[in-house]
Amino acid sequence: MAVFVKTSRRVTLAERPVGFPKDSDFAVVEAEVEEPGAGEVLVRTLWVSVDPYQRGRMSEARSYAKKLELGDVITSQSVGEVAESNDGRFAPGDLVVGQLGWQEYAVARGGSLRRIPELLDPPTLALHVVGQTGFTAYFGLLDVGRPRPGDTVVVSGAAGAVGQVVGQIAKLMDCRTVGIAGGPDKCTDCTLYGYDIAIDYKDDDFWPRLKEACPDGVDVYFDNVGGDVSGAVHRRLNVGARIVICGQISQYNLERPEPTFHPSQLIVYRARMEGFLITDYAHRFDEAAAKLVRWVAEGKVRWREDVTDGLENAPAAFMGMLRGENRGKALVKVAERGG
Amino acid sequence: MAVFVKTSRRVTLAERPVGFPKDSDFAVVEAEVEEPGAGEVLVRTLWVSVDPYQRGRMSEARSYAKKLELGDVITSQSVGEVAESNDGRFAPGDLVVGQLGWQEYAVARGGSLRRIPELLDPPTLALHVVGQTGFTAYFGLLDVGRPRPGDTVVVSGAAGAVGQVVGQIAKLMDCRTVGIAGGPDKCTDCTLYGYDIAIDYKDDDFWPRLKEACPDGVDVYFDNVGGDVSGAVHRRLNVGARIVICGQISQYNLERPEPTFHPSQLIVYRARMEGFLITDYAHRFDEAAAKLVRWVAEGKVRWREDVTDGLENAPAAFMGMLRGENRGKALVKVAERGG
Repeated sequence: MAVFVKTSRRVTLAERPVGFPKDSDFAVVEAEVEEPGAGEVLVRTLWVSVDPYQRGRMSEARSYAKKLELGDVITSQSVGEVAESNDGRFAPGDLVVGQLGWQEYAVARGGSLRRIPELLDPPTLALHVVGQTGFTAYFGLLDVGRPRPGDTVVVSGAAGAVGQVVGQIAKLMDCRTVGIAGGPDKCTDCTLYGYDIAIDYKDDDFWPRLKEACPDGVDVYFDNVGGDVSGAVHRRLNVGARIVICGQISQYNLERPEPTFHPSQLIVYRARMEGFLITDYAHRFDEAAAKLVRWVAEGKVRWREDVTDGLENAPAAFMGMLRGENRGKALVKVAERGG
Repeated sequence: MAVFVKTSRRVTLAERPVGFPKDSDFAVVEAEVEEPGAGEVLVRTLWVSVDPYQRGRMSEARSYAKKLELGDVITSQSVGEVAESNDGRFAPGDLVVGQLGWQEYAVARGGSLRRIPELLDPPTLALHVVGQTGFTAYFGLLDVGRPRPGDTVVVSGAAGAVGQVVGQIAKLMDCRTVGIAGGPDKCTDCTLYGYDIAIDYKDDDFWPRLKEACPDGVDVYFDNVGGDVSGAVHRRLNVGARIVICGQISQYNLERPEPTFHPSQLIVYRARMEGFLITDYAHRFDEAAAKLVRWVAEGKVRWREDVTDGLENAPAAFMGMLRGENRGKALVKVAERGG
């Protein structure tokens, strides 16, 4: 078996970010590529994903997942092609997706990879609509939010990778949808994603416009951002409202995040606030993928990618995403297929 | 039809409390008793209830129920005997419970009253274990908290009217129970109510003792108090934890309550925080009453009353309850039966 390549560039955690991350928190290093062992697969990375949850992994604080240690490759979902395989289910050239990190080559257990059907076009859909962000939208909205026809569904971070899918699934469930996003461009994108109304939280008129957009109150609030934006939505809840806590990106870079919520509001509205993690739904990913692939094929779920070129630019893409500069799902292109 | 009595003393809202209520926020006034109209019943009050929710009704802020106006009789559940009845379902001398307020005589629609069976001894149980606080414990724990055998159930305000029942129902459901209360006397009472462990939140060692009391984490947190006590419990949640928001008494007398909760904790623990109002369960009160009456008769649910004598002392009893001075369900005795 020929060794396919000797070295691989990878982006590692150089320092734990304090507050907002900076360039020097990351390092681009070269490392020797390991030989895949029994049952393992060597994957050549084509695209890596850039997501808010990665910020949490860089922190010291206890959370739901193991934190990164200094020197570790940054965690990410990636799409790649199989370079060498010691797992009979995969052959060189196959497109796969998995938790492979920000690196040019990765060795993974075959069982941790999912094959991307050749019909999935572009294959990067496996990193968003037909991948973890799409599944997050699907299970978060349907299983946690439980929308009913006619409900008003409000989504924060509505133009982001998860938010763009949530609004469209909510429309498919016959809901009224209100997207909250930052700036006029993203609000325009919200219209592309089928939101009935888009509201710019940076607008001075945010609060009256939100009120106007929800004349019958808010039944489901799918929250990606937290903080003051969410505080405004909480004041418009209906009795029986459901608040889906998907993310709280406004809080991730604060050195000492302050509490933002009054639990007594849940009594006033007899409301439910619930968090979830997409990894808990792994046994149902096929169900979500089947639905999402069909909706994409039928033009019922549209999407937008924001692609940065070059693995070495992944930290900049990540920081831009945290600042809200991306339009659509943030991805980094690492290599061409078959290269 | 003879007019049974000419005047009735009542306790009214004289001023809206700012922060912690004071004597001058209340007035004891005499008023002429109305004649009961068609379908109405004149009730002579024997006992009135003193509950945290009454504080909310005294505020200007929007909430789940109509606020009191200045001069209104303070809302309360009361037990009384029928003095005159224009509703065929009730006869003079019948014991009834209803939302009758802090007053010696009340006129109510017959349909708003529940008859107290003569077998219910003492009849004041209709104001707590077999009344709204017992129903609150029953539906809040079972329907919202959904405990499973072996779960660790933590209750704040554990020695209070609701808390004393929650712990005992949780034991009947084969849960491990940890009660949080203020001061050694109330912690002793928690043991009477069957809590496996009682912890004093005023103790300097509160946090390590809570940690020690929940070695396997917290599955259900039944929260009556909010604030810092709840903040400590939130740090011990298990994955899949359920936080029942029943009350937030620590916040009710703050002029500007600050937010106390980080919604991102619900992601870390994939947890649910849910509020409820007992009035939404009115159609199921008979189910809860049947269970609670049986448990009381079998000695499986024990209780304690803290009785103040004299309607004019209801404001003092109320303020004492807000300061946590009561031991057991706070009640005010207004008159003797058959007097």
